[in-house]
Amino acid sequence: MEPFRIHILGCGSALPTPRHFASSQVVEIRGKMFMIDCGEGTQVQLRHAHISFTKIRAVFISHLHGDHCFGLIGMISTFGMLGRTNDLHVYAPQALQPLLDAQLELFCTGLGFKVVFHEVDTTRQAVIYEDRSLTVESLPLDHRIACSGFLFKEKETARHILRDMIDCYEIPVSQINNIKLGADWVTPDGEVIPNERLTSPGTPGRSYAYCSDTRYLPKLAERIQGVDLLYHESTYTDEMADRAKLYYHSTARQAATIAAKAQAGKLLLGHYSARYEDENVFLQEAKAIFPNSWLSKERMVVDV
Amino acid sequence: MEPFRIHILGCGSALPTPRHFASSQVVEIRGKMFMIDCGEGTQVQLRHAHISFTKIRAVFISHLHGDHCFGLIGMISTFGMLGRTNDLHVYAPQALQPLLDAQLELFCTGLGFKVVFHEVDTTRQAVIYEDRSLTVESLPLDHRIACSGFLFKEKETARHILRDMIDCYEIPVSQINNIKLGADWVTPDGEVIPNERLTSPGTPGRSYAYCSDTRYLPKLAERIQGVDLLYHESTYTDEMADRAKLYYHSTARQAATIAAKAQAGKLLLGHYSARYEDENVFLQEAKAIFPNSWLSKERMVVDV
Repeated sequence: MEPFRIHILGCGSALPTPRHFASSQVVEIRGKMFMIDCGEGTQVQLRHAHISFTKIRAVFISHLHGDHCFGLIGMISTFGMLGRTNDLHVYAPQALQPLLDAQLELFCTGLGFKVVFHEVDTTRQAVIYEDRSLTVESLPLDHRIACSGFLFKEKETARHILRDMIDCYEIPVSQINNIKLGADWVTPDGEVIPNERLTSPGTPGRSYAYCSDTRYLPKLAERIQGVDLLYHESTYTDEMADRAKLYYHSTARQAATIAAKAQAGKLLLGHYSARYEDENVFLQEAKAIFPNSWLSKERMVVDV
Repeated sequence: MEPFRIHILGCGSALPTPRHFASSQVVEIRGKMFMIDCGEGTQVQLRHAHISFTKIRAVFISHLHGDHCFGLIGMISTFGMLGRTNDLHVYAPQALQPLLDAQLELFCTGLGFKVVFHEVDTTRQAVIYEDRSLTVESLPLDHRIACSGFLFKEKETARHILRDMIDCYEIPVSQINNIKLGADWVTPDGEVIPNERLTSPGTPGRSYAYCSDTRYLPKLAERIQGVDLLYHESTYTDEMADRAKLYYHSTARQAATIAAKAQAGKLLLGHYSARYEDENVFLQEAKAIFPNSWLSKERMVVDV
């Protein structure tokens, strides 16, 4: 199966600490790379992760708090110095566009590629990106300012050829692709062989949901029902649930509750408040509700 | 003598490397802290250097290339989250102001302190900051865009009291400050004791020049004549002198030549191109011309 995995570049929260970088991840899916959030220092983390600077096709920005986007102009500027030529797509709340334009004008004259801005409507769940391999949907979250999560859904692959049947009917190589896409086969004698006898179903697509930053939002579970991997912010532990509510963040227990309700395959915690020295408290709290919980860490690579 | 020292936070050049951070330094002088340049990642380096976030009074930005200023908005934002209340002064080329205003409006609503912008005219040498302890002068440099170095000059201290003479004339404590500032003393008999008999001269002020980024600029040596410590960029070694000229940078040999002509006390090299793995080549090249040359490194603290 082709890789579908998440590279954690940063999983800290707003205040810088020696332990964590600001939010950023790279979603690698069938050889394509997409970035989610781009806090200060992301370009350095990208280099540490040995991810080629030219491979990032698009950057999805969840919301306009600095720890989720202050690294964007530096990364774009570096892409330019390294001679990138292919367009970079930026998906973000509309308010970023005039600022990004002003930054590009002041700092990136003569940039060798286009930065194509796409507004994300943070108020509704909708497909905001699609190609042959996947779709990306926006996920409205409940934060202090307009904020969207992102749901990456791999498309089901083409049907799998049953080699013995293909050989048996002596189907020529030129027809294989049509068969994979569902075509029946007509023998030289005019007999119609239904596709179901020549193929087995394609591999179902895997899915990944990124939900940060947000208050506990029960209806999120429906929107990501059955997701294979969920990254859900856990800024606080449950004893600070009041503070979480006040600042529109979640606790580890709440993140785990969403994972359980959504029947997720696995939960990744992150966006830890700087006040916690030992992050195992998040893990213990989440595991009590959703056993397949994990702590995200910088430079971790997680298979979906 | 009260400390006058430089904290190196970053001394790399435009492309990020695992070895260096982008340009930033903190000048500590008589307990006051001033930042020069603020590349991406500076706030993290400030934390690593254990410099209190509230102590930075002003930030001097040499020019508007990203590796010298992309960390500014993140640092200001963090200052805000940490509850800073005292004004922060930013000295920079004028073009930064509208962008900084737009960033502050979008990312820093409710900031608890004022960001006071001061335009630096990069075309002339002039005092741009002054307080009781020091002056800061702009130093026109020769870069691709408007760029200014900065010359920090400590003021001469008040005159030193000659304790024996003070005791001999039974001068009251209340008068000591006046005497330090140069007043004569009139005895109860009406005899005038000239200040020179009561005091020795004050300690001459020390000085520090930051010159980055710039092409080799011979007249710079006159402008910083006799400086105690010179930080001069050395992006390349001499075999790349053509490239240095093309991109408006200097070689280590050129940096050392400026230090020698200026009769500087000490030279600090920095702003190394990412292409050099071993920076001792810069040091060897500089020492051949100016023996008291040093390589700057992150987290180094250098006394002026």
